[in-house]
Amino acid sequence: MTLHNNPTKHFLTLKTQTPSAILALVHRSLMFKHHKYHGDGKTVVPASAVNQLAGKTLALLFTKKSTRTRISGEAAWAALGGHAMFLGAGDIQLGDVAKGGESWRDTSTVVGSMADAVFARLGAHSELEELAAYSAAPVVNALTAKFHPMQALADIMTLYEAVLGPAAVASLVATNKPLPPLAGVTVAWVGDANNIINSLLVSLPRIGVNVAVATPVGYDIDDDIQDFVAAEAAAPSPYPYGSVTYTRDPRVAVRNADFIVTDTWVSMGQEAEKSAKLRAFAGYKVTEAMARDGGAKSDWHFMHCLPRKLEEVDDEVFYSKRSLVFPEAENRKWTAMAVFEHVSGNNPANI
Amino acid sequence: MTLHNNPTKHFLTLKTQTPSAILALVHRSLMFKHHKYHGDGKTVVPASAVNQLAGKTLALLFTKKSTRTRISGEAAWAALGGHAMFLGAGDIQLGDVAKGGESWRDTSTVVGSMADAVFARLGAHSELEELAAYSAAPVVNALTAKFHPMQALADIMTLYEAVLGPAAVASLVATNKPLPPLAGVTVAWVGDANNIINSLLVSLPRIGVNVAVATPVGYDIDDDIQDFVAAEAAAPSPYPYGSVTYTRDPRVAVRNADFIVTDTWVSMGQEAEKSAKLRAFAGYKVTEAMARDGGAKSDWHFMHCLPRKLEEVDDEVFYSKRSLVFPEAENRKWTAMAVFEHVSGNNPANI
Amino acid sequence: MTLHNNPTKHFLTLKTQTPSAILALVHRSLMFKHHKYHGDGKTVVPASAVNQLAGKTLALLFTKKSTRTRISGEAAWAALGGHAMFLGAGDIQLGDVAKGGESWRDTSTVVGSMADAVFARLGAHSELEELAAYSAAPVVNALTAKFHPMQALADIMTLYEAVLGPAAVASLVATNKPLPPLAGVTVAWVGDANNIINSLLVSLPRIGVNVAVATPVGYDIDDDIQDFVAAEAAAPSPYPYGSVTYTRDPRVAVRNADFIVTDTWVSMGQEAEKSAKLRAFAGYKVTEAMARDGGAKSDWHFMHCLPRKLEEVDDEVFYSKRSLVFPEAENRKWTAMAVFEHVSGNNPANI
Repeated sequence: MTLHNNPTKHFLTLKTQTPSAILALVHRSLMFKHHKYHGDGKTVVPASAVNQLAGKTLALLFTKKSTRTRISGEAAWAALGGHAMFLGAGDIQLGDVAKGGESWRDTSTVVGSMADAVFARLGAHSELEELAAYSAAPVVNALTAKFHPMQALADIMTLYEAVLGPAAVASLVATNKPLPPLAGVTVAWVGDANNIINSLLVSLPRIGVNVAVATPVGYDIDDDIQDFVAAEAAAPSPYPYGSVTYTRDPRVAVRNADFIVTDTWVSMGQEAEKSAKLRAFAGYKVTEAMARDGGAKSDWHFMHCLPRKLEEVDDEVFYSKRSLVFPEAENRKWTAMAVFEHVSGNNPANI
Repeated sequence: MTLHNNPTKHFLTLKTQTPSAILALVHRSLMFKHHKYHGDGKTVVPASAVNQLAGKTLALLFTKKSTRTRISGEAAWAALGGHAMFLGAGDIQLGDVAKGGESWRDTSTVVGSMADAVFARLGAHSELEELAAYSAAPVVNALTAKFHPMQALADIMTLYEAVLGPAAVASLVATNKPLPPLAGVTVAWVGDANNIINSLLVSLPRIGVNVAVATPVGYDIDDDIQDFVAAEAAAPSPYPYGSVTYTRDPRVAVRNADFIVTDTWVSMGQEAEKSAKLRAFAGYKVTEAMARDGGAKSDWHFMHCLPRKLEEVDDEVFYSKRSLVFPEAENRKWTAMAVFEHVSGNNPANI
Repeated sequence: MTLHNNPTKHFLTLKTQTPSAILALVHRSLMFKHHKYHGDGKTVVPASAVNQLAGKTLALLFTKKSTRTRISGEAAWAALGGHAMFLGAGDIQLGDVAKGGESWRDTSTVVGSMADAVFARLGAHSELEELAAYSAAPVVNALTAKFHPMQALADIMTLYEAVLGPAAVASLVATNKPLPPLAGVTVAWVGDANNIINSLLVSLPRIGVNVAVATPVGYDIDDDIQDFVAAEAAAPSPYPYGSVTYTRDPRVAVRNADFIVTDTWVSMGQEAEKSAKLRAFAGYKVTEAMARDGGAKSDWHFMHCLPRKLEEVDDEVFYSKRSLVFPEAENRKWTAMAVFEHVSGNNPANI
């Protein structure tokens, strides 16, 4: 096989990204966003990024539906000058070869030879790893059952915006100074043990954020994630390491929280187990009363990766000034731009 | 929330567009078309428009199928250098939040924060208004049950081409002189009381065109449209106001008509009521005999926004020299370009 | 109707392409590929092709599913700077007008007036010809029941890469010398009498390649293809004409073969006749033993247009060094670029 002159760099999980790489990506994301609202009012991106993906095609390989991930991915790739091609479950012929489908290996080899990057939303994380193993083009994780790094990156960006405030963000963008770690900031996760909290747990503590996790009985954080957290806490790093605590009680988790974060408990396709889940998550709805009872900081913020269901958070919180859910969603685009730029071998952030 | 430095300009109906704005958009559309057939033969658009939407994404949000509207919208956005992203009913999760869907409000806030414009084909016009209310990006109506402004604009462009002829069009494009109103031109509508005639009624008379409307019993033009027509007739304007008449008899409507216009009576999803409709519309098929009996001008032209059904017009008319249906369809692209340019804040037409 | 200043050039079959045109397209394809792996590492295409389709839209009109054809088509069009718009069977309203559908004629006239080229994957070849007859924009065949010229062109490119080797390819690209015919090279087709072998039979012999065709009883090559082959063999040409032989016995076909080529016997939608086909194709599976028994050259290569089924070829061959299936798939993109450039009126290859 021919050698590829662009080394492949996949982006499958934040586990394997260093703290400084994460901060560089978020810095670049803040810069992209700043350009939209405070730039020349004409160009979509700063001069350093205009048309940098010209002629390049992103293959969105989505075996599951998506709104935010798809739109942010397409819009991000297009903002950098490239063409996004959406391939849903019905558009490709993945499956067991013995039953007439096409294998991951063959599909990946082919798609990775024609597309310039692959943005894949799959089921098991092992499927993504197999896809990446055979793709000459960089593969970016657009969600697996295990990790959702693109969401976590947008969440980190949202934390920075809230903690630093607009003036400090503008200054960091203008001076191109590295982002400081978020030491002393506390995030409470109140919800399911899913790919979002997994992604936050493998990233937030390493940039100094304390994480308090509340999940119900039967919904424990995966052992390998807990092990990773413990190992990283003991590993040397130039960055402070945040504390991580686990509890069953949402009110315990939100004590002194700056941010309360949750997500949908009943995802697409899980409607069957809905009533069991609702019982397990009794008391987990995020409300003003719950946050007050638990002792969250008075200026706590709310985050949710959307779409929300009514059982997770009430309208009073969801549509309040505390709620960062819409900037958080918009930040999906800015962080996707930074990641796409990075995996495409353009590296203004010097990661 | 952050302030947007590009003021949002929606395009939901021609009701709220001034006559001079409508003429400026049509002028620009004629210019785009002229460039294709008489330009340098290389560039898709004139220099003033090349790449003006570079890096920008149009979200096509279509809860109903479409051929012309979708293709014209994608091709128009792309011609100006942008990326078009099609989202069908199955691609997003709109619906009742209590039942697990995502609200218009949330969807619109999110899509409008990531896309640079939204081209929406929905059901009720109120859905479109709700979408627009929460979208930071401009929303363009790609059809609602009430209005179809993009079709009406293409129809107006088609009227100008036929009335003025190629030489006068070329001269107006070259000199950049404003289009004159179409005083004395008579359009007969022979068909259903739908979003197309609604859009024509709120626009054509205000640029001088006489409109004679024939609809069967039970298919009256909506009161609010009739009220708008009457109010505008009485309002001061620098432009002459065309006459508007309503009748049940197609032959009465086509008297002295320069253009006979119709549309599908039985739209997608209305097959159930087809036989009732066919009875109601007996005598409404556009034919040479019908036009002659009614006293249409000898050089009358036929228009139809497609796709046509056999009950509305016979092949003799549809594929004749009288028929403008294919230029009318092509003009969907040129007018979409003018509208997209306009809502994107680029305003060579000085609207 | 207005005159089009870009003459329409359809690309429906290799039958009507001269040998020198085919070689020029393959030469340009090799050049595009060379630029990716040995170019500046920044641009997707050489300077002569950058943004040459800027602002232009390719309508992919696919009434059948596809992976390779779709991805190669979209990526190729995008690499040249244009926008690709995918329209599946559910996206348009093709059908019998009397039953509420839209005719080929009307659809083609409309799509061809708004898109800058049409890439169509249809059923009967006559449908494609009707589409082309009414389209002002060039129509490119993305597969019909009769021909698949885009696959055949990629196959020819793959033959050249294997026969010449990397150094000779690099030299031909650098010097821009015409490709030599492939006189003396032997291709064995072992499989169904389908659109792929039809396309190879109307092209390969005319550039000097010998073709040995094995198909089972009941699966004869169409008479008109056999007639074309015979007529071309007798026609004057500056190129040597390869031999063409037909047999029932795969072992006879592969004698002295440089390349053994097959394809899926049971295509999408043909699952019903699967067991009958499996019986008819007994002995047609490509294996090391079969090639050795038949007397293929010791360095024979394997080709297959994918997706493969297990009954056609075993893993030992499919994933071996003999197998060219993945470069062959990748070459779909490079050849599509050459064809799109050609039909768009850009003609660096001087066809």
